[in-house]
Amino acid sequence: MPIPMELRRIIISELDDHQIVVLKETDGERNFPIVIGIFEATSIDRRVKGMPSPRPLTHDLIISVVEQLGGEIQDILISDLQDHTYYAKLRIRHDGELIEVDCRPSDAIAIAVASRVPIYVNEEVLGEALEDNE
Amino acid sequence: MPIPMELRRIIISELDDHQIVVLKETDGERNFPIVIGIFEATSIDRRVKGMPSPRPLTHDLIISVVEQLGGEIQDILISDLQDHTYYAKLRIRHDGELIEVDCRPSDAIAIAVASRVPIYVNEEVLGEALEDNE
Repeated sequence: MPIPMELRRIIISELDDHQIVVLKETDGERNFPIVIGIFEATSIDRRVKGMPSPRPLTHDLIISVVEQLGGEIQDILISDLQDHTYYAKLRIRHDGELIEVDCRPSDAIAIAVASRVPIYVNEEVLGEALEDNE
Repeated sequence: MPIPMELRRIIISELDDHQIVVLKETDGERNFPIVIGIFEATSIDRRVKGMPSPRPLTHDLIISVVEQLGGEIQDILISDLQDHTYYAKLRIRHDGELIEVDCRPSDAIAIAVASRVPIYVNEEVLGEALEDNE
């Protein structure tokens, strides 16, 4: 059963190659960090702060492509955790079908923030994430 | 009339925020530079060098989304030049129609290189680009 999550924090360190986003349960306090790249972290950070961008960025382009092909982004799902690596899916409604496109959590979260769709994580992934970060 | 172009050079300087790709006419010697960001430059450079990526990157995600929504990327077009800024279109075949999605040239070129589709530039843009860089 997927759990609704929200973005709690973005930790950006220019001195480090690895940035961190923290996802927190919408209806609770369980939370876990995901390590992402500087490009995605900056992209997410700009959105959250409502900073305008003079030109559509790469994640906006994904949203445009989906819309112009007649799809609608329904939500994103952090679907799996293997060897400390998270996997995600972009879930798109198209012609009455639900299409799941594999992607990195960083892209998924950037798209969710940009297109204001919900973020979910599979219950078992949340459990494993909490163990991983104990 | 769009002119077929190819990627001639990628100039990456870690000390600079602005990287450069040079597009050259496929059937001639006319060429011009486009300034792009480090993320897109690195993404293009990795493809050209055939460096494997452990996980699908953001431009791969765009290609997956197009394919899974039943589209096919036909080519990319550098369509316009205004105030020294280039504009591009991702041209997608979908249900027998040609759909043009506005994007930055850097994303367009990264997608063209990743999905091995042709790069075009409008004749008048090429003319203006050459004047701009005289």
